[in-house]
Amino acid sequence: MKKITVIGGGTGTFVVLSGLKNYPLDLSVVVSMMDSGGSTGKLRDQLGVLPPGDLRQCLVALSDAPSLWRKLFLYRFEKGDLAGHNFGNLFLAALEKVSDNYDQAIELASYVLQTKGKVIPVTLDKLHIVAEYESGKKVTGEALIDENFSENTRIKNTYLKPKGNVNVKAPSAIKESDYIIIGPGDLYTSIIPVLLVNGTSQAIMNSKAKVIYIMNLMTKSGQTTNYKASDHINDLKKYLGKDPDYILVNNSKIPSDILNWYKKYNEVEVINDLAKKSFKIFSKDLIDNEKIKKNPSDILYRSILRHDSKKLAILLNSIFNYA
Amino acid sequence: MKKITVIGGGTGTFVVLSGLKNYPLDLSVVVSMMDSGGSTGKLRDQLGVLPPGDLRQCLVALSDAPSLWRKLFLYRFEKGDLAGHNFGNLFLAALEKVSDNYDQAIELASYVLQTKGKVIPVTLDKLHIVAEYESGKKVTGEALIDENFSENTRIKNTYLKPKGNVNVKAPSAIKESDYIIIGPGDLYTSIIPVLLVNGTSQAIMNSKAKVIYIMNLMTKSGQTTNYKASDHINDLKKYLGKDPDYILVNNSKIPSDILNWYKKYNEVEVINDLAKKSFKIFSKDLIDNEKIKKNPSDILYRSILRHDSKKLAILLNSIFNYA
Repeated sequence: MKKITVIGGGTGTFVVLSGLKNYPLDLSVVVSMMDSGGSTGKLRDQLGVLPPGDLRQCLVALSDAPSLWRKLFLYRFEKGDLAGHNFGNLFLAALEKVSDNYDQAIELASYVLQTKGKVIPVTLDKLHIVAEYESGKKVTGEALIDENFSENTRIKNTYLKPKGNVNVKAPSAIKESDYIIIGPGDLYTSIIPVLLVNGTSQAIMNSKAKVIYIMNLMTKSGQTTNYKASDHINDLKKYLGKDPDYILVNNSKIPSDILNWYKKYNEVEVINDLAKKSFKIFSKDLIDNEKIKKNPSDILYRSILRHDSKKLAILLNSIFNYA
Repeated sequence: MKKITVIGGGTGTFVVLSGLKNYPLDLSVVVSMMDSGGSTGKLRDQLGVLPPGDLRQCLVALSDAPSLWRKLFLYRFEKGDLAGHNFGNLFLAALEKVSDNYDQAIELASYVLQTKGKVIPVTLDKLHIVAEYESGKKVTGEALIDENFSENTRIKNTYLKPKGNVNVKAPSAIKESDYIIIGPGDLYTSIIPVLLVNGTSQAIMNSKAKVIYIMNLMTKSGQTTNYKASDHINDLKKYLGKDPDYILVNNSKIPSDILNWYKKYNEVEVINDLAKKSFKIFSKDLIDNEKIKKNPSDILYRSILRHDSKKLAILLNSIFNYA
C-alpha cells in the first residue's frame, strides 16, 4: 500500500483527505497547529488548549463514522454562551483537559471518529506564526495575518514564536512516505506553518518521497495578492528547500459570476505562468461544479469555489500508480 | 433476566445505576426532564434544548466505555465562554440539534458510551415543575425550588407546566418490569417530577412490578425540612398512588462531623419512624465510607454523604432473587 502524507490543515486539506480516504492508501496528515482565530482562537486564549480547529477538520475528513456523528463534529452552536463554538473543537479541548497527553486525546478522537489514517499535529507546543511584510509591518498570529487583507506588500519573512519542537511522529511519517501532498491551502496560514516547524522540511528533503503541490485556484488578499503560480512556487521553495516534483493545476474555466464576487476582495484567479520545461505539471479540470451549482445565488462565502475531492483523488491516484 | 426500571435522575440514581450495571439485569432508567439549573438551565434557556444534565448522569452511570471516555463526559469547563458547562451536556445539546429526533440522539449517545441498559427521558416535551407551599408561595422550576431552602412550610401541591406528554417508552418499560426502584434522590426535584408526567404512575399501578423505595439519608431544606421516613412515604404515596412494597433504610451511624456540617443548612438525618408491621423494611449499612474517608477535612459538598453503590446493589439483588 502506498504511503501518502498530506500537509496542511484548512479546507483544502479537508477536500484532499475526503477524496483520498476512499482509496486503499496508507494515509497520514501532518496538521498545522498555528490557528488563532474564531472558536479555536477563543479556546486557545481562554482555556490554554492547543488549537483544535485544523485537527478537527482533518479528523472529520478521514472519518468513516455514520453521517450523524460527522455532522455532530462539524456542528456550530448559534446562540448563548456557546455561540460560534464548534462542537468538534469543544470535544478536542475537553479531551485535552482529561487526557494524560495529547497522543491519548488524538487516539480517542481517531477511534470514535473511525478515521482512516493517522492525524498528526505538527507540534504539541503552543506557537504562533509571525509574518514580516516588505512594508516593515510585523503581524503575529494566524488570525491577524488572515485579517491583514488590506496589506499591499508581500510577506518577506516568517518565523514561529516561540520556536517550539516538532512532534516526533511528523518527521517519522514524512520520511516513510512515497508521496507528500502539499496544498491546496492558504500559503502562509495553512502550508508554511507546518514547514516552519523545525524538522519537517528537513524530513521532506531527506525522504525519497515525491512532493506534489496542488496549486490554489484563487489568490488571497494580504497573503498572496496578485500571486501567479510561479510566485506560489517561489515562496514555497523558500520554506520547503526545493521545488515540488509535481504540480497540479486547474485548467477549467471558473464561472464569471464567481470571479466577479472575488473581485470585491481584490482576489483573482491564479494564472499558470509556469514554464512547462522546468516542472512536471498536471493541468486538469479540478473544480467542484456541484458546489457551485448548488448555490447559484448564495455566493456569500469564498469557500464556494473549491477543488473537487473526487477529481483530485482520481488524478492523485493516477500519479501514485503511473507517474 | 430480571427486568428492573429505575426512576429518578440525580446523584442517587447515578449511585444505584453504577452498582446495578455490574449484575446480569435488564436495566432501564426513566429519567426526570425538569432540571432547570446550572449548565443545564443555561442550555435550556439559550438553545431551547431539552435538559441534558440528568440524562447525561444516567448515561455515564450505565457506561461500559473506557474511563477516559467517561471522564470526558463528566468534565466541566472552568474558564471563558464555557465556564461551568459540562462537556456531556454540550454533547447532548449539540446532538439534539443535528439529530432528526431525540430517540436518535439518545441512541447515538448510548452507543458511544456503551451503556448497559436503556436510558429513557420521561418526556420529550419542555416542561417545568411548579411547587405550591402551605405558605401560599408558588415556585416554578426545579432550580428555584432547589434554592428555596429558607422555606419553612411544606409543599402541599405540585404540577407540571405545561402538562406535556409522556414518552411512550417510559410506561412501556415500567409495565414490563419485575422491580421498580425509586430513589434515593430529592423527593420534589428528582423523583416526583417523573411521577407527575401523565402515564407514569398509572403504569406503575398497572404493572405487576414490586416497587422498592430507597430512603434518603438526610432531609433537604425547603423540600423535606424535618421530614421523617414516614413523611417521605406519605408524600411519595400522593404521587405514586400506593405505598412502595419494600423500603431500604440505612441503619449505620453517620459520623458526627458530617452531621454537624449539615446542621448549618438546617438538614438532619432522616429518622426511621416507620411502623415495622405496615412495611417490608430492609435496614442495612448503606453508606459509602470510602467517600467519607477520602475527604476527612474537605466537607464542602453535601454529596460527600452518599449511598454506597456496591452495598445498594448487593441488597437490591438479594431482594430480586429471594424477596
